[in-house]
Amino acid sequence: MRFSLRSVSHCGCRVGTLSCTRAVNDGENKEVETPLCTLYTKKGSAPYLSVDMLKRIEKLPPIVNMHLSSLADYTEALNKFQHGVGQFTALQDFLVYISVHDTGIEIPSGYNTKAGTAVWNKAGKKLIEPQQFVKCQEAFRPTFYQALSDSDTDKNSGKKRAMKAVDRTLDFLDTILELHKKSERLRDVGVFGSVEGGFHEEARMRSARETAARNVDGFVIEGFYAQNEKNKQIDVEEIKDLCNKVFKILPEEKPRLMHAVWSPDQVVMALELGIDVFDSCYPWLVTERGGALVFSFQYHNNSENEREARSTDGFEISLKDKSMFEDFGAPVPGCSCYTCQNFTRSYIHHLLNTSELLAPVLLMIHNFHHYFEFFESLRSSLKTDQFLKLKTLILEQRPSQEPPK
Amino acid sequence: MRFSLRSVSHCGCRVGTLSCTRAVNDGENKEVETPLCTLYTKKGSAPYLSVDMLKRIEKLPPIVNMHLSSLADYTEALNKFQHGVGQFTALQDFLVYISVHDTGIEIPSGYNTKAGTAVWNKAGKKLIEPQQFVKCQEAFRPTFYQALSDSDTDKNSGKKRAMKAVDRTLDFLDTILELHKKSERLRDVGVFGSVEGGFHEEARMRSARETAARNVDGFVIEGFYAQNEKNKQIDVEEIKDLCNKVFKILPEEKPRLMHAVWSPDQVVMALELGIDVFDSCYPWLVTERGGALVFSFQYHNNSENEREARSTDGFEISLKDKSMFEDFGAPVPGCSCYTCQNFTRSYIHHLLNTSELLAPVLLMIHNFHHYFEFFESLRSSLKTDQFLKLKTLILEQRPSQEPPK
Repeated sequence: MRFSLRSVSHCGCRVGTLSCTRAVNDGENKEVETPLCTLYTKKGSAPYLSVDMLKRIEKLPPIVNMHLSSLADYTEALNKFQHGVGQFTALQDFLVYISVHDTGIEIPSGYNTKAGTAVWNKAGKKLIEPQQFVKCQEAFRPTFYQALSDSDTDKNSGKKRAMKAVDRTLDFLDTILELHKKSERLRDVGVFGSVEGGFHEEARMRSARETAARNVDGFVIEGFYAQNEKNKQIDVEEIKDLCNKVFKILPEEKPRLMHAVWSPDQVVMALELGIDVFDSCYPWLVTERGGALVFSFQYHNNSENEREARSTDGFEISLKDKSMFEDFGAPVPGCSCYTCQNFTRSYIHHLLNTSELLAPVLLMIHNFHHYFEFFESLRSSLKTDQFLKLKTLILEQRPSQEPPK
Repeated sequence: MRFSLRSVSHCGCRVGTLSCTRAVNDGENKEVETPLCTLYTKKGSAPYLSVDMLKRIEKLPPIVNMHLSSLADYTEALNKFQHGVGQFTALQDFLVYISVHDTGIEIPSGYNTKAGTAVWNKAGKKLIEPQQFVKCQEAFRPTFYQALSDSDTDKNSGKKRAMKAVDRTLDFLDTILELHKKSERLRDVGVFGSVEGGFHEEARMRSARETAARNVDGFVIEGFYAQNEKNKQIDVEEIKDLCNKVFKILPEEKPRLMHAVWSPDQVVMALELGIDVFDSCYPWLVTERGGALVFSFQYHNNSENEREARSTDGFEISLKDKSMFEDFGAPVPGCSCYTCQNFTRSYIHHLLNTSELLAPVLLMIHNFHHYFEFFESLRSSLKTDQFLKLKTLILEQRPSQEPPK
């Protein structure tokens, strides 16, 4: 795995190329442009969507993000299957990134130990130790993975807890890197080290320094949110100064990934911090509350008319709202996605009203489409030096109230 | 709407053509072959499937079956929309048949009155009177609909209740036909009368005679199952003699539709009774219990090998079963559907285990595909005079135990 940084804009945004080797496809090489968001999944599939449906979405991310927590129970079967989790889930056309947790759900806090990290799924808790963790990755055969970490810290964590998270994570990383090196099955697989330390500068600096000193292919910036909080989106404003200091220690030529930076305003701010890779959990969260993303990212063509057409408070509208009963327009007028081309707000309102499962299917398609187009727009704004125009447009649309949780 | 009966086999099976005018497509005419099953829907959509996904299923029925119960709340919006429920649900390529109830769910018993019929959805009960019923149909603009009926009878209903059901249903029908005749919006729309009477010969004969004497385009044979029973499939053996008598009264050149005849063995027996149109609720029920249809209908090519490959007890297998954990084969080996071509039993087992909603999506695709192929096979067996061969094959595969409810 190789990252080449092509440019850093004066506001801090990085543009680069991630060159990945696919462990299971005869070492095939694939290049992807950053910044990007990965494809969010549940149990190894895009939520609600079959692969066929998924492939009709434009600007699909080249990397799919699956979670150790939801796949760990399948280690035995996947080990026997041999062809990796990409093929197992019929997502073999994607590069696969395995993170430890599904950041979209609430994860009980306080269960990590010196020996390992607790991951949770429907069946309950599973304490994963580094040795077992490597066995899982050998069975999954991803393109790259996040090394096991203790990220159970937030604003309220004391310095002692933050330090413990750093130490445990480094301990895990050392064991993992050693086993990884010896593993034939993980030969071409990338490892991302987690940078921990909560909100404590000293802890975080140590974590960054020590992780950077090891043979990792990239960094996951973790430990900024409480795992057991719903919609635990990171407030980038709050971590800006700390990150600016910490990131100076990280080598420029390695990619930086951050989970739980979701709404468009947080994304543009995190870009300025120098984050390269995001997740796309946000379109799923909006879908779950019956919402459709409507924010504009047409910075090059942001006419009065277009603004007015979309004029809403915030980034989304709720299709559960009674006003949708007789609204026969598309969820987002002018949107080219399958949902907006074929269905009305009124019909989706009906589906939501009667709890019909086609509702989240249709919303998921639109929300993914909208979010991926937004990332495409981010990339092109950086290339044409118009990022600030796009940033202004996004910040103008911030909601006056927090969306429902 | 016109039905032409092409042939009746010596075992009683009818082969015909239904010629329908589409009310909302400039009176476009469409011919469909019987016997057939309609496409089962929930709230106006194929369960779990977007239209796009649905269209990839082969041998799709040309008629979609929607339910008054789940659409009645939308009469006002649909009336304003004007283009009919087919376009509203993006199923404008299908002919639309509106039945009164969704036979796939439990419907509380005992709420029908002289004034109208109780229909149920998430919001609760709604008593629909004939006048209002016609207004609903004017808003829905289907190809044909089942006239409002009182079908709340079963084996245990007394003769008095059965007679009441017959009388009420005829009363409703008279009001409906009168209003229908005057309605410009319903000009090309067909009306099916319900034949009621529970298990009482006298009541049923009266119902058949009186309904046949009216200007209906076809018949829905109703009142054989308790509405509030789950998986209320009709036992055709039990109603055979009664139906044989009653059907003699019905004019041959009008189609006969029957709901809740679901499993393949019941379908082949009902065909011999002279039923033309079925529903496809069965694949949905199997999907809901985590099953995949596996029964064979390859009567012309039923080798030992093929039989062995499918060898199971009954028409379906449960993908929830632990034995599927490491089974990397397709749900049905050799099946050409999207699910069987792309996914393994093991992965679907994982999705079911973790309650991921892609599981029913994938199962719904396979089960619809399998069931529609079965109906195609039925039609071709009748054309080539090999129905008895297919019937034998189906009856051989009957389960030794009832499937789980």
